[in-house]
Amino acid sequence: MDKKTLKVIKVGGNIIDNPEKLEQFLQNLSQLKDAFVLIHGGGKIATEMSKSMGIEANMINGRRVTDEATLKIVTMVYAGWINKSIVAKLQSKKVNALGLTGPDGQIVLSNKRNPEPINYGWVGDIIQVDGSKLKSFIDLGFRPIIAPITANAEGELLNTNADTMAQAIAIGLSAYFDVQLSYCFEKAGVLMDSNDDNSVISQINKNKFEELKSEGIVNEGMIPKLENALKAISEGVHSVKIMHADSILLPTSGTTIM
Amino acid sequence: MDKKTLKVIKVGGNIIDNPEKLEQFLQNLSQLKDAFVLIHGGGKIATEMSKSMGIEANMINGRRVTDEATLKIVTMVYAGWINKSIVAKLQSKKVNALGLTGPDGQIVLSNKRNPEPINYGWVGDIIQVDGSKLKSFIDLGFRPIIAPITANAEGELLNTNADTMAQAIAIGLSAYFDVQLSYCFEKAGVLMDSNDDNSVISQINKNKFEELKSEGIVNEGMIPKLENALKAISEGVHSVKIMHADSILLPTSGTTIM
Repeated sequence: MDKKTLKVIKVGGNIIDNPEKLEQFLQNLSQLKDAFVLIHGGGKIATEMSKSMGIEANMINGRRVTDEATLKIVTMVYAGWINKSIVAKLQSKKVNALGLTGPDGQIVLSNKRNPEPINYGWVGDIIQVDGSKLKSFIDLGFRPIIAPITANAEGELLNTNADTMAQAIAIGLSAYFDVQLSYCFEKAGVLMDSNDDNSVISQINKNKFEELKSEGIVNEGMIPKLENALKAISEGVHSVKIMHADSILLPTSGTTIM
Repeated sequence: MDKKTLKVIKVGGNIIDNPEKLEQFLQNLSQLKDAFVLIHGGGKIATEMSKSMGIEANMINGRRVTDEATLKIVTMVYAGWINKSIVAKLQSKKVNALGLTGPDGQIVLSNKRNPEPINYGWVGDIIQVDGSKLKSFIDLGFRPIIAPITANAEGELLNTNADTMAQAIAIGLSAYFDVQLSYCFEKAGVLMDSNDDNSVISQINKNKFEELKSEGIVNEGMIPKLENALKAISEGVHSVKIMHADSILLPTSGTTIM
């Protein structure tokens, strides 16, 4: 039996941070014909909040450590303000949005990351996605809007990477749907020249990724994003794209992961 | 056909603020045999956060005005930190908790309160509860955990009184369930002498309420709580109690609203 199409869309922090871009994105989202799940990142709001509360960022090897104060702030900002703002705006556009995090219905279960060799604090590594519960929401007509906060079996909240969350959710739903995963951000796709939006690389497979990485064409945040995208396509997700947030109604744009 | 029993439980801020009391309350909740919906208040965390961010409380006639900064904070604290902390803890106790606010599935729709004669800012007055959507979650085995944040049809988030939210939700679910509404807080019920937990008034009806009010025995926060309780019982809720948060497994305790 043919499975129905489901779009799993990750939208990045740079869109969340910009009210006009976010409004345009949500307007486009409300025009989608297929069912969808949205996973949103956090943006700069959490960093600004920490600053205004006098909480110093604690960094190891350039990566932020999620101490207790930071966990509280990201949970408040991602699961509270951003998630509910998006849900309310989508409802006003007649989209039956339903805000969720990992512990809600235990749709995503994590382990706290091993503190060895580096203790990143309250960070979650996903161990399980309950695709059947997410499916039950979708079957009732809801559109899940998911913030990147999870919990472990002990009920501890954990800061979780939104790109990884989108990958794991897309894989978990592939048993029930033909899943089209899209990573949406402020650029037109994976670029040969990061300053030229006309230099989109149209297709990337595992070998091409290794080549681009060794040449330094992809680096920093794009490397884990591509690793997530490649993992998704290798584990049953029907299609994976990295694309501009303005392009969700234009399925031909962006970089296709093969 | 007999309707199933559903408990609608409001838990107050003084329980939320105390980690040991909250843990005991959630432990008891996990032992309940009947299906339930929990509505939680906010407690002092939002006030403390505002202080640490240098936001001054803006009061009119002793009531807090929800300006934009305050709306952001209460949404973050109630819908983010408190809601997800409760959901994760209940999941760890094998309760299939699902965190919600008004805009999620548009279960509760509000209007922004009329700014005349007094402008209380971003405050919501409930105009509609979608009991059928809440029922669909309950029928799937979820236990809704609801934060007192709603939105209007324009997608604007609104701070909403948790006691009123519990009343409106209890009424909205009465078409589908025999609803038992309980207002749980740090005292044993409505007291004749506010310093004596043994002075619980066992039953209160509308006439008794007017009497207690004119005698000054009930005042401040207890007056709107009793008004909500009386409205619930007059609009089809099966039973309404005001009771100690420790007593949710002891249905005979507290004050019964007739």
